[in-house]
Amino acid sequence: MQFGANNTPFSREEFAFRLACTKQRMAAAGLDALYVSEPANLNYLTGYDGWSFYVHQGVLVAQDLPEPVWIGRGQDVNGARLTTILPEGNIVGYSDDHVQSNARHPLQVVAKVMRERGLERARIGVEEDSFYFTAKSLAVLKSELPNARFLDVGPMVNWVRAVKSDAEIALMRQAARIAEKTMARAIEVIDDRIRQCDAAAEILATATRGTQDHGGDYAAIAPLMPTGIGTSCPHLTWSDAPFASPAGTTVEIAGVRRHYHVPLTRTIHLGTPPDRMRKAADVVVEGLEAALAVARPGAGSRDVHAAWTSTIERHGFFKDSRCGYSIGLGYPPDWGERTISLRAVDETVLEPNMTIHFMPGLWLDDWGIAISESIRITETGVEAFCDFPRRLFIK
Amino acid sequence: MQFGANNTPFSREEFAFRLACTKQRMAAAGLDALYVSEPANLNYLTGYDGWSFYVHQGVLVAQDLPEPVWIGRGQDVNGARLTTILPEGNIVGYSDDHVQSNARHPLQVVAKVMRERGLERARIGVEEDSFYFTAKSLAVLKSELPNARFLDVGPMVNWVRAVKSDAEIALMRQAARIAEKTMARAIEVIDDRIRQCDAAAEILATATRGTQDHGGDYAAIAPLMPTGIGTSCPHLTWSDAPFASPAGTTVEIAGVRRHYHVPLTRTIHLGTPPDRMRKAADVVVEGLEAALAVARPGAGSRDVHAAWTSTIERHGFFKDSRCGYSIGLGYPPDWGERTISLRAVDETVLEPNMTIHFMPGLWLDDWGIAISESIRITETGVEAFCDFPRRLFIK
Repeated sequence: MQFGANNTPFSREEFAFRLACTKQRMAAAGLDALYVSEPANLNYLTGYDGWSFYVHQGVLVAQDLPEPVWIGRGQDVNGARLTTILPEGNIVGYSDDHVQSNARHPLQVVAKVMRERGLERARIGVEEDSFYFTAKSLAVLKSELPNARFLDVGPMVNWVRAVKSDAEIALMRQAARIAEKTMARAIEVIDDRIRQCDAAAEILATATRGTQDHGGDYAAIAPLMPTGIGTSCPHLTWSDAPFASPAGTTVEIAGVRRHYHVPLTRTIHLGTPPDRMRKAADVVVEGLEAALAVARPGAGSRDVHAAWTSTIERHGFFKDSRCGYSIGLGYPPDWGERTISLRAVDETVLEPNMTIHFMPGLWLDDWGIAISESIRITETGVEAFCDFPRRLFIK
Repeated sequence: MQFGANNTPFSREEFAFRLACTKQRMAAAGLDALYVSEPANLNYLTGYDGWSFYVHQGVLVAQDLPEPVWIGRGQDVNGARLTTILPEGNIVGYSDDHVQSNARHPLQVVAKVMRERGLERARIGVEEDSFYFTAKSLAVLKSELPNARFLDVGPMVNWVRAVKSDAEIALMRQAARIAEKTMARAIEVIDDRIRQCDAAAEILATATRGTQDHGGDYAAIAPLMPTGIGTSCPHLTWSDAPFASPAGTTVEIAGVRRHYHVPLTRTIHLGTPPDRMRKAADVVVEGLEAALAVARPGAGSRDVHAAWTSTIERHGFFKDSRCGYSIGLGYPPDWGERTISLRAVDETVLEPNMTIHFMPGLWLDDWGIAISESIRITETGVEAFCDFPRRLFIK
């Protein structure tokens, strides 16, 4: 790998298309420029890749600039040279005394770049509710550029990401093979008296090795594996206590290729499960299949949700949370794209190559179960990325 | 594990002390209340633990309330019941239609809790530049509570965390054993023609297994392992390309216990290293040892930095970035505490049981090297958490 020899899996044309789509949305919102700080959006627009999002960094897109400008920590400039498609002049580093300092703030440098690029009085979009765009970020921008106007664009670039290219789908298919291997390994290793951390180690190693052809990447979410009463809550991770029997464990993992995620969830039960859990598993699978039968171009994401809820309600279950969300490119803390949510109030009409983690689960008072699929909307219906049995696993 | 049977490693008294220290700082800043959103601060004040920080959540501390209030997603309420020390009445969930929605925002619920707790006209501190406290978070609070006054407290709770208790130090010593094992494994597995992802898999598995007595937890940062020209940038992760020889790889990992981190960095060189790299390794070790000789209670963090820079400058190296930072409790994206930075402009006077990742490295144009130690300030000097050779590893 050499400087300038960006090794992104995407063509220059694909990056140009992403930028054009972004500028189109900016134009529709009357914006001269857009400052993007969500790590996945940085990667999407420029190829930038590095675990540097714990300090302020971002990408400036302006209607009058042919290419985005990356602004980050001086120490990460070499990383930007190595990973982005940007020319040298579009990579700007700030000095290290801006890092976590009371005296200086990195967004002062961002404002300086905006000034230098003629944006002193511009209408500039910002991602007001995105990860890592802090309240202070906006305050500094407003204070440094009092004559500019800053407007919340929400997840504007995330919406560009919602429909995947064929190259992105190819990566997600590779990720699906990794997800299958990882879940199979999880089911193998989770067992009575095995420490949870030892199972997590095998899960992480399998996901990271990936396949012989395609190595795995780090996931935007650590393996979630609540066990016992913990299965009543979807977001617990492991401890070093052993698994007990009888008890259920819900494993949510993702196969990841070049930061593209294909999540997969299954519940594993050690020992004989209670009848109510077997029944719930049947209901979840029935609801999942009813929902997938509805998902196709032109259907609403709310229709998919309705198919799920009406099925489970027939069996006496009620769940008020969303049952799926858009997936793809992601960095910690989330592999969801924060755009499409499968729920009653969502207005998305599904399109081909939208990709969704359909995550039907029942989290009850003191136990839970989940059986998910990552799906792609095809021209006519739906394709599940993974080929993995849809059932409760009993050991 | 049962509801209410919080399995935190810390006593009720320790939580009470943390809260009292926080309230003392709040009083000094003239605050009636404080809204905390950084995941590590949530854990520190309440024990809360879950990978749910990709949605809005926080803890409200008020001078007039005996215990903090956790506010998060309804789906995570069971997680809060399982992991926090809080009574049932201090756990508030918001409905799922607040998640990543245009119509509702979780901070509206936070504002409602503030109103219900009599804080409608209060002076309320917020962490304006903390991870996950977005610009929108503050805008919603201000709009919902126009008569309250919101003041930026910076990393106020992080500063409480800067001096560790004996119980915290005990966890960090356990984490150090994990860090040593993990680095030893990294040096074993990194080799010519081995895929980077396969080495990363072994590193992650070793860190997660931990020791026989103490399992490992997920780290707030993925293993950093830039290789070849990538070593010029500290924050690159792995690909599925094989390691080449001759080339250097800089591995930065952490041992983690219950979210307490002990990071460790070493550079490994496959094949014969160039003389300049051997020389740089000697300089880094000399600078590291000069700095550790200075670190003690009463010394300034800038003195430690000066010892490092003056040593390397004697050898013709110059580095303008900080050479260390406070460590301990951490969640993605950072295991640093965002308080003490070892640099010329830092004003911290070191105290016993401050814990720091001393991270001396040289990142040059197209290569780099780093040899770090995680340290504790003792009553008289410094203790390195890990016992690991301070040198360039050559294979």
